Order: sequence, then structure tokens, then C-alpha cells
Amino acid sequence: MLGGLSTDLYELTMAAGYHAAGETARASFELFVRELPATRGYLVAAGLEQAITYLETWRYTPDEITYLRTVPALQGADPTFFDDYLRRLRFTGDVWAVPEGTPVFAGEPILRVTAPLGEAQLVETALLATILFQTAVASKAARVTQAAGARPVFEFGGRRAHGMEAAMYAARAACLAGCRATSNVDAGYRFGVPVSGTMAHSWVMAHPDELTAFSRYAAVYGPRSVLLIDTYDSIAAARLIVRAGLRPAAVRLDSGDLVHLSRAVRDVLDAGGLADTQILATGDLDEHKVAALVSAGAPIDGFGVGTALSTSSDAPSLSGVYKLVEIDRAGTLTPVMKLSAGKQTCPGVKQVWRVYGPTGPVGDVVGLAGEAAPTGGEPLLTCVVRGGARQQPTRAIDQIRDACQTAVARLPEGVRRHRDAAVYPVALSAALKRLAATITSELSPRATVVDTSSRPS
Amino acid sequence: MLGGLSTDLYELTMAAGYHAAGETARASFELFVRELPATRGYLVAAGLEQAITYLETWRYTPDEITYLRTVPALQGADPTFFDDYLRRLRFTGDVWAVPEGTPVFAGEPILRVTAPLGEAQLVETALLATILFQTAVASKAARVTQAAGARPVFEFGGRRAHGMEAAMYAARAACLAGCRATSNVDAGYRFGVPVSGTMAHSWVMAHPDELTAFSRYAAVYGPRSVLLIDTYDSIAAARLIVRAGLRPAAVRLDSGDLVHLSRAVRDVLDAGGLADTQILATGDLDEHKVAALVSAGAPIDGFGVGTALSTSSDAPSLSGVYKLVEIDRAGTLTPVMKLSAGKQTCPGVKQVWRVYGPTGPVGDVVGLAGEAAPTGGEPLLTCVVRGGARQQPTRAIDQIRDACQTAVARLPEGVRRHRDAAVYPVALSAALKRLAATITSELSPRATVVDTSSRPS
Repeated sequence: MLGGLSTDLYELTMAAGYHAAGETARASFELFVRELPATRGYLVAAGLEQAITYLETWRYTPDEITYLRTVPALQGADPTFFDDYLRRLRFTGDVWAVPEGTPVFAGEPILRVTAPLGEAQLVETALLATILFQTAVASKAARVTQAAGARPVFEFGGRRAHGMEAAMYAARAACLAGCRATSNVDAGYRFGVPVSGTMAHSWVMAHPDELTAFSRYAAVYGPRSVLLIDTYDSIAAARLIVRAGLRPAAVRLDSGDLVHLSRAVRDVLDAGGLADTQILATGDLDEHKVAALVSAGAPIDGFGVGTALSTSSDAPSLSGVYKLVEIDRAGTLTPVMKLSAGKQTCPGVKQVWRVYGPTGPVGDVVGLAGEAAPTGGEPLLTCVVRGGARQQPTRAIDQIRDACQTAVARLPEGVRRHRDAAVYPVALSAALKRLAATITSELSPRATVVDTSSRPS
Repeated sequence: MLGGLSTDLYELTMAAGYHAAGETARASFELFVRELPATRGYLVAAGLEQAITYLETWRYTPDEITYLRTVPALQGADPTFFDDYLRRLRFTGDVWAVPEGTPVFAGEPILRVTAPLGEAQLVETALLATILFQTAVASKAARVTQAAGARPVFEFGGRRAHGMEAAMYAARAACLAGCRATSNVDAGYRFGVPVSGTMAHSWVMAHPDELTAFSRYAAVYGPRSVLLIDTYDSIAAARLIVRAGLRPAAVRLDSGDLVHLSRAVRDVLDAGGLADTQILATGDLDEHKVAALVSAGAPIDGFGVGTALSTSSDAPSLSGVYKLVEIDRAGTLTPVMKLSAGKQTCPGVKQVWRVYGPTGPVGDVVGLAGEAAPTGGEPLLTCVVRGGARQQPTRAIDQIRDACQTAVARLPEGVRRHRDAAVYPVALSAALKRLAATITSELSPRATVVDTSSRPS
């Protein structure tokens, strides 16, 4: 789906401008989130796999170029921009990035592109949309699965996602951050994640009565059956299953007081010899509701979570940006920054070091890429694309999930809190602060003083 | 992008169950929103065009079928489900729907599918994701463009959308509900909507100074240039443009106090003989900020709105569902409903009539499709697909936009309010209430009384 036209028009007007000026300087852009959403203590990076695939396959087709010639805003562009530049364009740059599944924080580069200016500019929009959306969903999934503890969480949110492509990538992001499976079949097909599903109310309603509905489903799926029991009366339906001698793998509750109903249904199933039949719960769940059910000791064996995951409902967007940080000016690598009110950026090509204490990370340091690592610091950004070519194999989702769950669990407890999370310490290195101060004074000798001791956004 | 696997797994387990039972009864499902988001007084229907295309092109490819055979949850399915049913499957049903751009309310069917049970079930997930997402964005765009009045609004939200497919459809939905153009190039290419763009901070930062940056851009785009002036100091940049003798079409402000800056910049431009140079404003705008800028009399000629539009940020999902309402039982069309706690549905195949008074609509009536129209009532649902074939030509976006803006402007003023909107009256017809009461009593003679005088969700 991602192609040359998956971009904002101004990326093309600027690229045509660079082309007209013969400007092919290499430049570095960094993608980062300005501020965490109020409800997030940490984010989980995701989307890198699709971003790399996009860069590898990035092309302008002849039909697309024919269209671009007709766009009024591009009428000033030189004909060779279309005939030559766009026709031959491939991504030839380097990308450094934080691995998917890694906890990240505000102001930390998640991805850095170094490429000729036009190339680096044209890929901005798609990189932002890809990384930010999937990071938002993975971050939400980490919270929900942490709340569920050892009980599995299934991603069931496709129908409320922002279209079915978003649904598929949301399913992947949710699984890499902790979900055990998804209902999204396309995600299973394309990414190899486990798919799971139950039945809908319509199955029950399409039959003359619940007994017929359940029996017919069990006749097909036998011990794998998951029967949805809340269409009319959940407890009565559980009794019906027992009386009919059905032995489903699980029943699903989708409405009502889930603490009360799960206990009552558990009692009915246990008394009926169905101690092995699990209870799944669904119905507009999120991390807070899951935590409350776990805390109440509700006998629920797994959670299906939909909208909250597939749209990251309480934080559906991240304040992510992609900013020029360095440009090669006639052979001199020149760090740059902007001073726009409230939106200053931090200059230079950067690295992020995660500093570990005895029990886990204690804080991050954002510094210049060439600096020595701080004591106990491990770099987060590694080279994933060099000269346009992928440098690392695609990782399996379950490997990412295991690493993610471990990394999230090692974060300071306050940072992992679901409400009023503590702020994880992210410091700028001394060298980076000095650079920002120097450039600020050069750019605006009489301008408002920019406080470089706090983290620029 | 939408295909056979764009679905939840349970649609497939149910379809295989119907296939195993030889169940091919025709059934009707209705897609509607249970409740308006707290911040919405009305919704604007969108997504139908993509939904129809999806149904027309819906297929299971051999590779997809090969994958489905391996899914554990489908192991009980009959081999002919894969070899025969899925391989030959095409959408053969009928669809009735509300035209794109039409204001709609909670509980009103936006779309109805009548098809053999398996078909109607399998398309559920994609229809919901398609219609709900695009309706959410169109609804937001109607608010933002109403707030802007005669000043144009441009959709600039691609980078924060839920991936670039979502960005493209968000752009279309925003334009059909009122935006004049989008920055999304793919939307321009695929849907013929106007595309617009300016320049980014990186263009300014990539040059040694602002004068060089502006001059080089103007050299390419001349009087079409839109110059971004807030990278360092907006007012100083406006003076620079005047002094340099540049004559851009517009300047763009992206940060700071937009009321103050737009006035100061307007003064600089006017004094410098650039009265024709417009001022565009961007920067995390939404309907409330746009209304405040308009109300303050800020000399802003157009608004670029991003994240708020592309994610419908304050209401990123709609509580939409797709519910079985009628099934053919051995030749008898049988209305059905569910009673799940808090999630009762309303039985039978329905129509929505919009009842007009002298100045515009005064309320809607949801009734059974066969009923006579109420006095002054015009039906909203029309047949858009019959026997799997599209019944109406694709409408041009600007035609939909004109109709939408007119329809929204005619809604009662209280319903259009951006905060604490009045509730638009939606009544159930007497026949529909009677039917719901009858079925409720049949299904649960001893169950909690369902109050059918209020609108079932």
C-alpha cells in the first residue's frame, strides 16, 4: 500500500525545489515524540519493520508521475524533476533505529534517516504515520497486557480500527507488545501471528434457539468451540450448555457485570463437570477494566480487547515529528535546530543510551552520536538500513514480544503505573547541551533565551 | 487493500459452520452507531464508496485459502468450505445505505446488507472498519469547516493518521464533509480531490539563512509560493519577505499566539505592499481553536488542520455495530433481536425517514422498511448494491461536499453546537416498537422488562 504518493504534497514541492537548485547534500532527520500523552509513562517502539519495507520498495510509477505533472502546486518544477529525478528515485540512505518492542520516551530519536535531502524529505510523511501509529498501539498493548498479568490478552479491535490496513498493523503492534493472538486474519496471514476467534451474537440469533445454535457450532468445532453466552441470559446459557452435555473449550461473556457473571458462570460450569471450560471476557475492555477484574479475582481466563487497542483510544495520536538535525554544507557536517515558539528542536545526530542499575534501567541519556557511552549505558539506536539496503533480518513477533515484556517489566514501577505515572529520567549529555546553546545564540543573539537545561521538544 | 482476509477470524468460523449445516438462508444485518460520542451532536456518513468497491471485488485467493487451511480454529471445517465455498465466493447480496455526506444519528442504520448468511457475516468486519472510521473523520471535518465559515480548511493530518491508507481515506472523508483540499497526494491521485502544500521547517533549516531559503523557493514557485515563516521569528521573517521584494501567495504561521502574530504579520505585509499575500495558520488546530481565531477576528485566510481531522482525535472511534435483524426461516422473514444487558438491538429491516419542517429537518423516524413514510418524511436509505452489482455511479467529492455542507447547515442550531449539543429527535415508529415488544416478551417471558419506548441501542 505504501508508495511514492503516500506523502504530503509539500514533501514533493520541496524535493522539486532541491532538484531545481541542484541541492543533493546529505542530511539527517530524526523522528521522535515531543511529549508523552498525559496517560502514558512510557511508549513501546513499533512500525520499524513496515518502515524498512517501505524504504526498500519506494518507487514512483509512470502513472503516478503523470498525475504529479498535473498538480497545480508543482507547475513551477523543472520537467527533469518528473522525467529523470522521480523516475529513477530509490532510497539510497542510511537508517538507524530503536528495535521494535523497546520502551522509549519523549525527546528520544526512535529513527534517524541520513540521505540526500530530497530523499530524506520525501519519506517523512509515511515514516511518521507508520512509526507513530504502530508505536501508539504497541504502547497501549503493553499497558493492557501488564494489567492482565499471566492471563492472555487477545486483540479483537479490527472493526473499530481506522480501516482494515490499520487493523492489520494494529494487530501486529498489539501482538509484538504482549497480546497472545489477534482476531485479524490478515495479520495472521502476513505476519504469522496466531489468530483466534469465537462466535458472534448473530450466530445465536440466526438459530431458532440457543441450544440449536450451540449444538450446531459444537458439532463443527467440538472441543475447540468457544460459545458466546450473553445473547439473552448468560447464566441460563451456561446451564443450557451443561444440560446439553456440551464440552466447549471456553465460553465468552460480552456484557453485564463481568465479576458477578464470571463467578456465577464458573459455579455453573464447575458444578456441571466443566471445570476445564475456560471463561473469556470481552466488551469495551481496557487496561483499567482488566486490572479491576484481575484485582477482584474474577475467574476470567483471558481477555479480548478491541477498540482500546486498535485505536489506542485514550491517546489516538502521538506528538511525533521528523526534524532536520544535521546537513552537509560543502563537506562540513552542520548541526541545525529550529526555535519556533514552544517547538524548539535539538541539533545534531544523536544516540540514546539506556543506563542500567542493578535491577533495571534507571534513566536514559540523549547525546551526540559520536560521544562515548555513559557508564552503564547501552545504545538503543542501531543501523537497520545502509545505502538503501536492509541490514538486519526480520524478527519474529514472538521474539519481539518476549523482549518487550521483559524490558517493560524492568522499568521502574512508577513509570509503569497506569495513572499518574512517574517521569522516567531522560537527560541530555553535556556536549549536546553545549551544542544547542551555541547554535541558539548564533541563530538569535537577541531572541528569548532558550533554556537548554530542560529537554527541548 | 481490502480482501477476503480483511476480517475477524470468527466470521470465518461462523461461515464454515453455516456451510457445514447447509445453511444458506438470506439474512439482513444493519450497521449503526449505538451512541454518539459525548462531543458530537451529529455524525456525517462516509465510507460507502470504498465499502461498495470492497463488496464488488471481494475474493479469496488460492494463497489465502491455503493459509486458512492451516488455521487451528478452522480445523473442524469441512474440506469443501475451502475447496468449493471460499474459492467460488462472491458477494451476491443487496445493500441499502445512506448517501455519503448525510448527517446521521445514533441508532439509525447507515447501511444494511441482505445476503446469504455466510456472505453477510464474512463482510462484517471490513464494512464496520470502513464506514465507522470514515464517518468519524467526516463528522469531525464537518465541525471544523463549520467553525471556519467561509475560510477554507485544508486537511494536513496524514503524518498522524493510523498509517498511510488511513491517511488517504481520512483525506477523502475530510474533503467530502467540507475541507477544500488535502496535503495527501495519494488522495489527489485516487479520488481527484485538490491537493495543497506549503513548505516545512526543514526547507528553511537546510539553507544557511531564511532569505536564501525563501528566495530559492520563490525562484521555483513564483507567485504560487507559500512560505513558512515561524522557524525562527515570524514577524522578522515577514519583514524579510517584504525587504527582499518577494511576492508569495501566502505565508504560513505554525506556532505561537496566532491572533497576535497574524495581526502583526498582516500589518507588515500590508505596509510592504503585499496586501494580496494571504496568511494561513496551522499547528494542532481543531474546531474550537478555529472558532476562537475566527471569533477574535484574526486576519487568517485559511486553516490547515491535521491530527484533529485525520484521527478524529476527541472521538477516535464510534460505537458502531453490525447486527442481524432479520432472517429467512424456511420462507418466513423473521425479525430477530438480542437482549444482552445494555446492548439490546432493535428487530426487523428498517428505513430512516428525515422529517422536514419549513426551515429544515425537525427529527427522524426509524421504522420498518415496509411502513408508509411519516408526513414530511424523506427516506435516507436507498439501494446501492443489488445482486452484488453497484446500482449508483460514483459521486464526485465536490458534489458530496456541497450537499453535505447544505445538509449540516440546515440541522437545528443546537444540534450543530460544538459543546453540549442538543439531542436531535430520533423516534421509533409505532410498528417498530410493537415488534420489539412482542419479540422481547417471546424471548424472555421472565426477563427484565426492556423499555422499548427509549431507543434501543
